[in-house]
This record gives sequence, C-alpha cells and structure tokens, in this order.
Amino acid sequence: MPKLKPKSDIGLIGLAVMGQNLALNIADHGFQISVYNRTTETMDSFVAENPNTPGGVLGCKQIKNFVQSLKRPRKIIILVKAGGPTDAVIDTLIPLLDKNDIIIDGGNAKWTDTIRREKDLKAKKLRFVGSGVSGGEEGARFGPALMPGGDPAAYKHLQPIWDAIAAKVDAKTGRPLEGAEPGAPVKGGVPCAAYIGPNGAGHYVKMIHNGIEYGDMQMICEAYDLMQNVLGLTAPEIGKVFARWNKGQLDSFLIEITADILQQSDPITGKPFVEVVLDTAGQKGTGKWTSVNALDMGVPAPTVAEAVFARFLSAVKTERVAAGKILKGPSKRFSGNKTAFIRAIHDALYCSKICSYAQGFQLMREAQNEYNWELNFGQIAQIWRGGCIIRAVFLQKITDAFKRKPKLANLLLDPYFNKTIQKAQSNWRKVVSTATEQGVAIPTFSSALSYYDGYRTARLPQNLLQAQRDYFGAHTYERVDKPRGKFFHIDWPEKDRPQLKV
Amino acid sequence: MPKLKPKSDIGLIGLAVMGQNLALNIADHGFQISVYNRTTETMDSFVAENPNTPGGVLGCKQIKNFVQSLKRPRKIIILVKAGGPTDAVIDTLIPLLDKNDIIIDGGNAKWTDTIRREKDLKAKKLRFVGSGVSGGEEGARFGPALMPGGDPAAYKHLQPIWDAIAAKVDAKTGRPLEGAEPGAPVKGGVPCAAYIGPNGAGHYVKMIHNGIEYGDMQMICEAYDLMQNVLGLTAPEIGKVFARWNKGQLDSFLIEITADILQQSDPITGKPFVEVVLDTAGQKGTGKWTSVNALDMGVPAPTVAEAVFARFLSAVKTERVAAGKILKGPSKRFSGNKTAFIRAIHDALYCSKICSYAQGFQLMREAQNEYNWELNFGQIAQIWRGGCIIRAVFLQKITDAFKRKPKLANLLLDPYFNKTIQKAQSNWRKVVSTATEQGVAIPTFSSALSYYDGYRTARLPQNLLQAQRDYFGAHTYERVDKPRGKFFHIDWPEKDRPQLKV
Repeated sequence: MPKLKPKSDIGLIGLAVMGQNLALNIADHGFQISVYNRTTETMDSFVAENPNTPGGVLGCKQIKNFVQSLKRPRKIIILVKAGGPTDAVIDTLIPLLDKNDIIIDGGNAKWTDTIRREKDLKAKKLRFVGSGVSGGEEGARFGPALMPGGDPAAYKHLQPIWDAIAAKVDAKTGRPLEGAEPGAPVKGGVPCAAYIGPNGAGHYVKMIHNGIEYGDMQMICEAYDLMQNVLGLTAPEIGKVFARWNKGQLDSFLIEITADILQQSDPITGKPFVEVVLDTAGQKGTGKWTSVNALDMGVPAPTVAEAVFARFLSAVKTERVAAGKILKGPSKRFSGNKTAFIRAIHDALYCSKICSYAQGFQLMREAQNEYNWELNFGQIAQIWRGGCIIRAVFLQKITDAFKRKPKLANLLLDPYFNKTIQKAQSNWRKVVSTATEQGVAIPTFSSALSYYDGYRTARLPQNLLQAQRDYFGAHTYERVDKPRGKFFHIDWPEKDRPQLKV
Repeated sequence: MPKLKPKSDIGLIGLAVMGQNLALNIADHGFQISVYNRTTETMDSFVAENPNTPGGVLGCKQIKNFVQSLKRPRKIIILVKAGGPTDAVIDTLIPLLDKNDIIIDGGNAKWTDTIRREKDLKAKKLRFVGSGVSGGEEGARFGPALMPGGDPAAYKHLQPIWDAIAAKVDAKTGRPLEGAEPGAPVKGGVPCAAYIGPNGAGHYVKMIHNGIEYGDMQMICEAYDLMQNVLGLTAPEIGKVFARWNKGQLDSFLIEITADILQQSDPITGKPFVEVVLDTAGQKGTGKWTSVNALDMGVPAPTVAEAVFARFLSAVKTERVAAGKILKGPSKRFSGNKTAFIRAIHDALYCSKICSYAQGFQLMREAQNEYNWELNFGQIAQIWRGGCIIRAVFLQKITDAFKRKPKLANLLLDPYFNKTIQKAQSNWRKVVSTATEQGVAIPTFSSALSYYDGYRTARLPQNLLQAQRDYFGAHTYERVDKPRGKFFHIDWPEKDRPQLKV
C-alpha cells in the first residue's frame, strides 16, 4: 500500500458505481481522494480492491474523520441519489465544514434544486458547485464530460482536478482522444470541462444534454425501423449501415454503439440480439424535465417532447399488441431504390438531429435570460465533443457556428447547417412521406420537419387562431398594418364594428 | 324593481365579464342571486343595469352582508382570477360561513389547487365544489357546459341551478338546442352538466377540454394553411369549404366560427379579415398544463403538446420573418385534383381530431387511477356536446362508444372510429405527405398520424433504445422470450456473457 499524504486533495461521498468510477478516475490522475459511504462495507471493499492508484484512496468510516482528512478549502463531491438524499448529505456536512469549503454535487440534480442549494449554502458562507457529469459509468471512469456551475471562485479550486479527469478531444478536429489503452492517461488535448455559469447553469446544461440524447436515440430508432420495416433489412445488415454512417457526418458514440448492438447476436438464442430485446423503453426524467421546461418557458422544442412521448407509447406494450390486431395500416410496398432510400434515411436523421439541437440551444438561450446567466454556446458544444453520450463530430460544427457568430439566433441560420439542410431536405421529405404512406411511425423525424418548415415561415396560419380566440373569448388581436402592442377586437355578433383597444 | 325575497338562492363573488354573465344566466332562470365585487362601483352599475331579471339580483356592498343574504346551506360561487386571488377570497369567506356551507370555484383553477382547497375546507367543515365552466362569455350568459367536482352531497344543493343554467342538447341527436332567440329559455333537452367526481375531478376534466381545444384549433389552422398555400384558395373560398364541412362529420362550434371568420371582411381595409390579423398566437396556460400533466403521468399525448409548441413558434414572429429570407423550402407545385385534395384535408382533420381526443381520454383514464376517481367518460363527452368551445356532433360518437364499452381501452379501438379511420386514412396520409413535400408545417396532423401508427404497432423499435441504454448505462433490458419483470444485462465490453438480474 502506497504511503498516503496526511491530507487528501478532495473527498467523495457515495460509492455507487458512478461514485466509485469517478473516485478511481481522480486517483488515477495523481490526486489523493478520501471516500465515505453510508454503508461502510462498500467503502471498505472499494478501498481494498484499489490499493495502488497513483493518487491514493483514503477510506473513512466516520463522516467527521472524512471531513477532517481534507485539505482546505475542502472540496467534497456528493454522488448520491438526486433530491432528498442529496439534501440529507448536505445537511450532515454543514455543521462539519468551515467557511469557504466547497460542496460539489455531481449527481443528476434538477437545476432548480441546485439554484436553491447554492443560495442556502452561500448564506452559510459555504460554496457550492453543481456539476453535470456525463458519460455513464465508462465516462466517469475514463473521462466524462463535465459541466460545472456555481460559485466561479470555488470552481477555480476544483478546475485542476476537473480538467485532469475529463475526456480530452483534439484541439483541431474535435475528435475524442484515447490513451494507449482504456484508462491510460491521454497526452494533451482539450479537456471536456469548462465553467458554465452561476448556480444551476451546469445542471441545466446537463439536462439539455440529456434531452438532446432522448431525441438522438429516438431518431436512431426511427432510422432502424424504416430500414427494417420499409426495406426489409436484417439487424446485422442495418448494423453495417450504421457502421458506415459512423465514418461520415453522423460519426458519434450513439451511432457507433448502434452499429455494435445491431451486429451483436444473442448469447442465449443465437438470434440477432435486438430481436430478443423487449420494445418498452424506460426513462429517468431528464427528457421530461427538458420538455416541461420548454413548455414553462414558452420555447418551441417539440422534438424532444415527441421522443419522450415515444418512450411512453412504447411502454403500453399490452395495449399496442391488442391494438395491432384491430387497427389496420396501409398495404403499400416499397418499390424504389434501396440504396438511395438508405441514403435518404441518413439525410433525414442528420436534418432531424440538426433541428433537435437547434431547439436545445434555443432552450439554453431562453434559460440564460430567465436566470441571468451568460452561457458560452460554442464552449458548451465543445465540452460535449468527448466523454458524454451525445459526443459527435457534428458538435464541432456547432462550436464553429457560434465562433462565426456568438449571437446566432438559431443554429438553422448558420451557413453550414443551412447549406446541409438545403442539400438534404428533399431526401428528408422523401423519408417522411414514404414512412407516412407506409404506416411507419416517425414522431421525431416529422416533428423536426414541421419545426423547420414552421420556423422558416414568415406568415403562419395562427392569424386564424387569433381570430378564433377573439371570436369566442374576446381575447383581442393584433393587426399586420398597425404597430405591435395595439390590440383590436371585433364584437362578433355585430361584425362590422372593430374596436380599438390600446 | 321587482320585490326581492329576504334570502337569495345563491351568491356570486367577482363581477368581471364571466361573473356578470353567469349571474344573469342564474337570475334569468328564476333564482335570486346576491352579488359582491371588490370594487363596489362595478357591482352598483351591474345591479342598476339589470333591474328586471326573473330571479332578481341583490347587490351587496359588504361581504358580511353578502354572506348573510344567502339561504343555508349557503352556496357561493367565486369567479375571480385563478391562483392567489381565489385563495384570498376563500380566506375572507371562511370566518363568515357556517358548517356545511358550500363554496363553488367557477374559475379556471388548476385541479391540484382544487384538490388542496377541498381538503383544507373539509377540515373546517365547509364544502367545496370546483366546477369547470366552459363556453366563454357567451356560454356563461346563455348556457355553458358545466363540469362540477367535489363533495357529491354539496353538489346535490347546487344541481338544480347548474342543470337550469347549463346548455341543453337534444337527447337523441346530441345537437345543441336553442331558445326562440338568444337568451330565451330552452324547453326540454339534456343539460350539459353532470357531477364529474371528487375534489379536483371537475377542474381536471375542464383542463382536458381546454387541451383538446388547443388541438382542435391548431388542426383547423393546418387545414386552412394547406388550402391557402398548397391549393391557392382565398380566405372566403376556404370559409365556404368550412361552412360545407360544418354540415357533416365535422359539424361543430369551432368549424362554424372558422367559416364565419374566413368570410368576414376587415371593416378598415375591406380585405379578407384574416389577412390583417397578426399570426402570433397567445395562450393562457391550460394547454401547457395538459401537456405537462401528460409528461408527469407518462401518458403519450403528443398532439396537444405539438399544438402548444405551434403557438410558441407562432410567437417568435421576428425570428421567423428573418429565417424566412434565409431558409429555403422545396419548390414543388401542387398538380393534383383540387376537389379531391380538399376532401383529403377534411379526412386528415377528422382523423387527427379522433387521435387527439383519444389521447385526451387516455389522460383522463390515467388521472382517475392517479387520483382514485371514477370518471364516466361517456357522460363527459355528453356534457361537451353543448355550451363549450369544443362542442361538436362528433362527441355523440364518443358517448356512443363508451356506451357500447364503458371500459374501452382507447377511442381508436371503437368500431365507429376504427372504421372511420380505415376509410379515411389514405387521404390523411396523402395530406401529410403532400404537406411534407410542399414544405407546409403540419405539426398536429403528422403527430396524430405517428400516434396512430405507433399505437397500432405491436413491435416498436424501442428494443434498440433499450439495448442502447443497457450498453452505455447498464440500465438492463427485458426479453421477449422471458416473463416481464426479469431484467438482463450484457456486460458490453465482454459481449458474450449475458447476466441474469432478477
């Protein structure tokens, strides 16, 4: 056992898988870490199993000793269940800490909770960093994407550790860098970690990341469904298509694992693995949070919501099986060119993805007004290039777009994305109309397309809707030939007397 | 001035337009009503302007006198702003009331507030009825649809008044009945009012009504948009189409007023009225509540959400105008048969509407489990047949469906609706694919279609999504060849060892 320093560089509470992996990642990078877990046995075996990390792991049975084992200002990462358990740990820590000590919440906290906690702790002269940690278990262990928000001075103390453990990407290409072998340190590269903004900004951006992930996964499912049910390809054949796509514009972690999964056979039956997996998707709430937040802020972000609803629909399996016997679809057969249609699906996926990300960035733009943050959108895309679930070469294009124009109103307006959609949209439309005619559900492909068509339409039909609201509810309307903010009303039973209401 | 009785039958607090109209409706039906308003002048002029109602209106300057002017158990309708103002009025009333007195909230309260208020008042031995009141100003004055929830014994006291003032429909056809002239009493007919269920059930059902209204209005806008932008029809021509549709399956208040509106000319410019109305739709929250509730309960109800998002998108007018100059759509021209396409739009509208209502009823089904209500779905559709904004002949079909099968799992499965969609779906699909190819945004038409296609698909592609979640997050998966509730996991770096996790 290596000799431990008298004081650790950082502490971590909560040794479930994510906590263990993050602790090992920190220790691997030469930082000594104290660990504490409510169930002591978990802590004991964790320490026993990891005797030779470069930084060293110090196990603590008592939370008081744990706190005292840390250099000041103390930095304590909490990785327990979001909500009540996080509050409980914070409450336990408060009396044990000294002025300016730093609590870091690395869980999937709701950003509004993070705002509340930061405020409460500030009043007690303690500092709080709410940090999104993305990349699942693998990411936590070998390089996550990190989205810290909170007290900026506090983050300065955490930054060397966060930069060290984060995933790294090539500065020029934006591609993730890997060590000589899994877990081996990466030389150079840009860390996928940067200060996001005050109080809940980090957790907010992490939530948007997850919402976007919901969209990405649903879109991949729709592409798979089309290849399977319109073109009749087998799972391994579709897997090869995804493997090919992973070498182009769509190059990303999710496309890569999709290629793997579809080419995987089931160890029990020998069938293609996906064929034995039940088609009922679970969800853990962040996609829902994103959609509720969009509704609360009044931001059009329908595509993530469709992805969430698609999971709900998948969950009513028994009802669907019964309905499938009663409700008939069309009986059209695909008669076009298969290769061309596969290319079209690729384009539909890419265009839909662009729209979904555009919506996610619109949400962040609105949130920064709502919460008085100043978010660096290009940098956020940069952080997402490595370590996290949505990591993709495509994110470099977003970074580039915001570099060209930091105040870009919508991603769709960036020349690269505009040109890409111009080139691909006829394919996108072909896929949506083919799916429509063949009876394949494509909730996100079509929602994204309606978003694109709605966003580029200077004159939408909601003039009729406003007239309806004025008709039955006297809600008043604005006129195209008068300044905004002047409201008019027609007294509908006596239609010819419009009344000016200012 | 007619002689007033010593005690009034009912009281009403809040004399804004809805309150005034509801009070007059009550007085018109022979009930004496006491009225109170925070600003006394409003009350004074209301009483002065309505000296000769059949029941009589008693104005009260002091809330204490107002309360004392009522027969016991007292029945007091509150019609003030939802939220804080409603609570403030209730708090003022509590000390003035006696055991078993009844407070009725006729505002657009959130059902969760109604649940809370009913519980609080019950603890104080007071009774509370939260009643949805739909139909806007006209409805309140001449016959609203009423959705009362709360203490059933308390509703018995209110019922004679609610039945009297509600809209009436023909018992057989379900068509709204009208008096000899507007406001004249209707002879016979079934009142559009019935006890919905305990605590917040009435306000919940009213919220679903409003969510459905969002969907209906957006769908009408999409139909209008297609006739305008794909077929090049003028507003009055489109108005005539709606007038014709109003004689068939789509016969409803919203189609009727749409026909009116589109044929209306602007009194200032002489242009078609809709052409001068600004295309930015407002919203007052109930559509949002419905969507958030769907997300919270995990019920697939994407179509209302798309309607809400479409309003949000309409609101970013400046952005859209700018985007319209940069983002190009397709340049296809419509070359088919116009009459056939108008018929297809009709079918698309009707099918989408069926799906939207199916989703609304799924929400109520889930809510009744969530809150332990027993909702009578057929009766709810019956209440909506008259008085309210979504009143439609079509609702009779829903009543019939639930009469045929009270435990119907989904409206789509009812033989009438199934047959209707079977017949119309090729037209529906044609409209969605044409709009897709022509670049017209149709968020609700396409969302409803994906809902239909998803719901009738026994095997959705979410098996891939579950495999992805197992891959990067060890979320585990279920198998098609094992019982539900058994969870499996593949340790993905070592793909060939599936581990049973029970």
